[in-house]
This record gives sequence, structure tokens and C-alpha cells, in this order.
Amino acid sequence: MSQREDVIAIVKKSVQAVMPQRSVRDALAGMNFASDRLYLVAAGKAAYSMAKAAEAVLGEKIRDGVVITKYGHAKTPLQHSRIFEAGHPTPDRNSYEATQKAIDMVYGLSEQDEVLFLLSGGASSLFEVPIIAEDDLKTITDKLLASGADIHEINMVRKHLSQVKGGRFALACFPAKVHVIALSDVIGNDLSTIGSGPCYPDKSTGEEAFSVLEKYHIKLNADIIETLMLDTPKSLSNADHQVIGDVSKLCAAAKDACEALGYRTVVLTDSLNCEAKDAGAFLASIARFYQGTKKSLAFIAGGETVVKLTGDGLGGRNQELALSAADGIAGLKDTVIFSFGSDGTDGPTDAAGGFVDGTTKEKLEEAGLKIYEVLRKNDSYHALQAVQSLIVTGPTGTNVNDVAVVLIKR
Amino acid sequence: MSQREDVIAIVKKSVQAVMPQRSVRDALAGMNFASDRLYLVAAGKAAYSMAKAAEAVLGEKIRDGVVITKYGHAKTPLQHSRIFEAGHPTPDRNSYEATQKAIDMVYGLSEQDEVLFLLSGGASSLFEVPIIAEDDLKTITDKLLASGADIHEINMVRKHLSQVKGGRFALACFPAKVHVIALSDVIGNDLSTIGSGPCYPDKSTGEEAFSVLEKYHIKLNADIIETLMLDTPKSLSNADHQVIGDVSKLCAAAKDACEALGYRTVVLTDSLNCEAKDAGAFLASIARFYQGTKKSLAFIAGGETVVKLTGDGLGGRNQELALSAADGIAGLKDTVIFSFGSDGTDGPTDAAGGFVDGTTKEKLEEAGLKIYEVLRKNDSYHALQAVQSLIVTGPTGTNVNDVAVVLIKR
Repeated sequence: MSQREDVIAIVKKSVQAVMPQRSVRDALAGMNFASDRLYLVAAGKAAYSMAKAAEAVLGEKIRDGVVITKYGHAKTPLQHSRIFEAGHPTPDRNSYEATQKAIDMVYGLSEQDEVLFLLSGGASSLFEVPIIAEDDLKTITDKLLASGADIHEINMVRKHLSQVKGGRFALACFPAKVHVIALSDVIGNDLSTIGSGPCYPDKSTGEEAFSVLEKYHIKLNADIIETLMLDTPKSLSNADHQVIGDVSKLCAAAKDACEALGYRTVVLTDSLNCEAKDAGAFLASIARFYQGTKKSLAFIAGGETVVKLTGDGLGGRNQELALSAADGIAGLKDTVIFSFGSDGTDGPTDAAGGFVDGTTKEKLEEAGLKIYEVLRKNDSYHALQAVQSLIVTGPTGTNVNDVAVVLIKR
Repeated sequence: MSQREDVIAIVKKSVQAVMPQRSVRDALAGMNFASDRLYLVAAGKAAYSMAKAAEAVLGEKIRDGVVITKYGHAKTPLQHSRIFEAGHPTPDRNSYEATQKAIDMVYGLSEQDEVLFLLSGGASSLFEVPIIAEDDLKTITDKLLASGADIHEINMVRKHLSQVKGGRFALACFPAKVHVIALSDVIGNDLSTIGSGPCYPDKSTGEEAFSVLEKYHIKLNADIIETLMLDTPKSLSNADHQVIGDVSKLCAAAKDACEALGYRTVVLTDSLNCEAKDAGAFLASIARFYQGTKKSLAFIAGGETVVKLTGDGLGGRNQELALSAADGIAGLKDTVIFSFGSDGTDGPTDAAGGFVDGTTKEKLEEAGLKIYEVLRKNDSYHALQAVQSLIVTGPTGTNVNDVAVVLIKR
């Protein structure tokens, strides 16, 4: 089997292991719904496959359902739920309208009713209705971004200006109980961060959110300030959560897949969070060090790297990681580095990631491409495409971060 | 023993193992000098300790010697050699004058004479006489730096404008033989790069050097162009080289030192070359992943990271790596990450590096310091100093890159 075939097999098997169908089924098997007055909400990139799995188990128990996923992520209609597709990574009108339908559905439920919320990454954008005018929220967000506020500060403000984030959707369900089954795309599985925690208590106060705007000298009118200062719920008696999949599971699946192909494995981490191109260089330096190995070896690093935009090309963090690694492993034999997102969509591209080997740098140069120039332009997609090194899976229906793998075959 | 004591012991033992005294002695023991008409040149940060070791073996055989090292790196006088201290990382008048003394010494030697060249990192700056006026060289270098030329391009131009780099010092020694004993601070031990290869053939042509200046639209007068176009030697019949120490040896020494303290060890790489702060984040993510270990564990990564300057603070790559790691290991028990330069001088500071543990982030915050703000200012020295986390050894007399270590004690 060629190493390219190894890569394809490992990607396939790893994604398969973190698909939510079975884990949703297992989670539901362990849950006792007090009533058959059950309402389904599913939001995120994995919403469709999670909802389909839940319908297969719960069937007629579901009185109504609202499923919101990213464009192109839904398949055939569901029997008991309405499906909506909406904007990601930026919420759009469809996000707001679909989420409003979920709010309408749970409005007025009694304590005999129950809500099953199938949550996955992407819900921050897909599951949202602002309290203030959309244009005002957009202006505030843009100003925060331009002033250099970090993502935690921005999310804190957003939670306070949302009807559903930061536990407010659970409030909307009250007195009905909400059972959340979550697929985590957040390192550390912080429930207040996955999908912006629609059913999870939020620690931040209105005062704190306001102080972020003060810090960056962003002026607001009195109405918006009043709205912003309203506290998010600090405790919720009607919600419970369980996480059914995350990047640890993805790493374990990649490990199993590598071992099945005869590689000895070392999992380095499941919380990789540095810059993509530096992670690629680090992994390449590990690959170089182990060239003398007698046995086939695989190093596995899961997590979510970041990309600093310095150009306006097309790419994603997994593709940048792989492309950057191509420099460090140039000339090495039977050595591959690849990285992919379990959701199948790396950055705003149709690729899940990329894979490179000891010949990739030379092939790029033959195509007139220099790795560091491509990285400066953030154009990893086109470079990897030019040398047939993209990993393309299409949207997978799951979403548990990324994994990068070094393979040395002996 | 506390983990701080472990760190100190590992640093001490690792540096000790790569001190050049014994390896210079061993190398000389294996060499047959045809004559006792021997001339010594030593240049670099380790020049003094290498020369002292050589004098101890060769004694009266040395007819004359020129030893050039960085300010503060020389100790008591040598018996057969003249010692000079000069500028690093930028050459200064003392570099030029001392190097001229070495050229004068070897001028007119016969084929009965032999030169022993003890080379170590730092020699690119310490061992230099430009062919053109110093001011002209400075102007060209400044323009190249400002126009975004990379270090390889700059070094190529510099070699062509130097009397000693790129093999030209070996030419100056001809017909005398030159035996080079080198301590490598270059990943991969490329002999044309260590100290800019004063005795090693240079592949680059005058045409190529000229094309770098054309690429960045740097105009030169006709005299300088003529000088630049002179080729460096493409082969040298009178020089031989051996490398007696490098970062691989440093990693092996760190591994031994960790094992002596009861840690199981994994050497990840000896060619780390990514950004310092991302290497720190990556190592911290490995430390987090292995918190469940039952046995004490050490991960070792040698190489030379890089720092992108975004501020005007004080620091070095090892200190940035450690400081950045403090964020990722915050709250972890019995876990330390440290990084140090074997030469004892990290960046333009008097520290060799830094070490951090699970409490460092909190201590920094108590001191009013935020890790990411400090990194943005490149002010790791002052931050680590504020929380007593600098590693200070003073100039060690060796120079074989850096090593970073993760320690998890159980």
C-alpha cells in the first residue's frame, strides 16, 4: 500500500470513528425521558447527522423539531423535524429566522415537556437571534474586531446581545427540561464555549461586557447599553449536558487507524493550539529526527491551530500546517505529514486538509511555487491543489477539531 | 529534590557535556601534524575554551596564535596565542583588526606550515574583514535587511564582499594546510554556514550574489560590482574539517541528565526551527496531554527557534519559548518547561534562558504582567526576571544551539 493510500485510509477511519450516529444512539439509550412530549433542536455543522440518529431512536416521541446546519450540510428530509440551512462562520438572515423558529417552538412549554438539544460546533453562527438590531450588532462586532479585541472579549459581548447564547435558550425553554448532547469542537470541552453555550450558565456579567466596550472606546446609545447590562443566567436548574465526542476521541481513532496499518504510534497532544505553520515545522523536525527508525512510526497531534492572515489567498489551518511541513521534510523518504479537519471543511475551502511528502517541495518549485511566499499569501489551497495534495472528503457531518499526523514507513 | 533543582542540574550537566575541552583534546589526539610549524586561529563564542584546550595538548608546537571571541568571553591570557575580543552579533572595528592579524599571521606560510582553525558559532561577526569600505558594506547590509531579503541572500552577498568568508581564509593560508575543528551552532552542521565557512568552498557565484542586489533594486557603484563578481573558491585542496560538537550532542546530554534524575525521556527532535512562542505552546500542549502519566517523564527538543520582533523589549528565543509555555501549563502540578542556549547568552541578555511551571502565569499576573502582552513587546527577560524564572549561567565557553525540556514529575 502506498503512503497516499495510508493517508486516505487513516482519514476515512478516523472520521468514521467520530461520526455522531452511534454516540448519539448510545447517549439516548442511557437517558430516560420522563414524557413523550419531546421537542428536538439541533444546531451546528453536525446537526443533520445528529438529528437523523436521534429520530431513528426516538421516532414518534418527537413532537416537533428544528434542525439548523450550514449550507450544503443537510441531506434528505427528516420525518419529525424541519431542516434549515444558514450562514457560517458569519450568521445571516437564515440563522436568525431558523433560530426564531426554535424559540417559537419551545415558547410556552410546560414542565411536562422536554427538549433534546443536539449541539455541535458552528452553532455560534447558525443558532443566533440578536436582541438588538442586526445592523447594530454587526457594527459593534466590526468595531471590536478592528480595535484588536480578542475572541473571548468579543464572545462575551455577543452573549450579552443574544437571545439564545450564554444559557438564554435554556431560559426560553423553562419550565421544560433541556437535555443537551454535545459534540465538542472546543479544546477542553468548555460547555459555555461550545456553540456559545445556549443552555449553559454564563459567568460573565453585563458590567464586564460593558467594560470591554469601554476598554476599546466604543460608544453605544443608551438603549443598547441597557440591553447589554442585562445579566445572562448564572445558574440553570432545567438543563443537563453530556459531551459525546471530541478531539481526544479523534486522536484515539487516528492512533487506532495508524496501528491497523502497522505503524507504532505516539500521540503527542490533543490540545495543539499554536500557529499552523509552526506546528508544521515542529512536526517536520520530529520526522527528520526519527528517520533512522527501523519500525514504521506515526506521531499524532490533535487540536486546533491558528492562522495569522498576512495575505488574501485561499486556504485553511490544516492546509497551512501541511504546506509548511513540506519544507522541513523535503528530500526525506517514505515520510508523510498530513492534517485535516474532522468536519471536512478547512477554512473557507472545499478541502478537509492537505498531505505532503519528501517530494512535495520540489514539485511545488517545478510549478513555480515557493512555500514561504505561498504561506505569506495564505494561499495554501491553490499550492496544494497544484501538486495534487489536498485531502477532500466533503462535509462529513461531524465536527471535533483537527488532527495532524506524521507517518514514517519502514 | 525540587523541580527547580532538577532544572539547574540538567542545565549544568548538559552544558558540561558539550564544553569543547575534552572533544578538542580527543580530536587533536587523532590528528597527525606533519610539522611542528603550527599556527593557531580560533574564532567564535567558544574560541577561548577551544584554544586553551588546544594549547594544553600542543604547547610549544604552536608558533603563533590569534584567538578572537566575543566581549567578556576571554579569561586569563594564553601562553602561545594573542587574544582579542570583538563585536557580536554585529562586527566592529575590533573584529576587523583582530581578523587582519590572523590574515597577517598566515600570509606567506609555506606548505611545510600548518594552521589549526578552531571554529565556533559567532565567527561570522567576530572573524571578518570586508573587501570594500566598512561603511559601504554596512549600507548594503542595511538596505538588504530593509528590503526584506532573507538571511541566506544576505549571507551570500556578505561572503562575496569578505576577505575571509566563503573559503577565502583557507586561500589566504595556501599553500599551508588548514585543519578545521568546528563546534556547530548550525542545524544540520552545514560547514559553509558555520562561522560563514572561512575555510570551506562556497557554492554561490558572483553572478548569484549580484542578482540578489538586482532583485531588491539596490544600486552599487562599478567598483563594488566588480568586487562582488569575484568568485569565492569552489574547491579547496588545503583544508579539512571535523565537527566535534553540535545540538545532537546537547540533546543526548540533556537526555542523560534527565534520566539520571529518574525521568523517562523522549527526544522529539534536534532540529527545532519554528517560532519560539509556538514551540512553547506546542510543548505545553504535550505536557498537558501527559498529565496522567504514572512515571516521571521528560520531552526534549533541541534546535534553534526564531523570534519575530514586534516590540522593543528585552529577551531571547529561549526566554520567549518558556514564557509562552507558561500559559499552556498554567495550573498543572509538578510540571516544568525550560529552554536555554548552550552558550549561556540568550538574545542580547545576560540570561541563558528561562523556566516556568504551573504557577508562573499566576505569579506574572500578580506582578501585573500578561503573557501575550509581554510576548508582543518581546520583553520576556523582564517578565521572567520579575518572577525569578531566568536561567543564568554566564557565558559558558561553548555554543551548540539550544534545548527545551518538558519535565513532568511523578
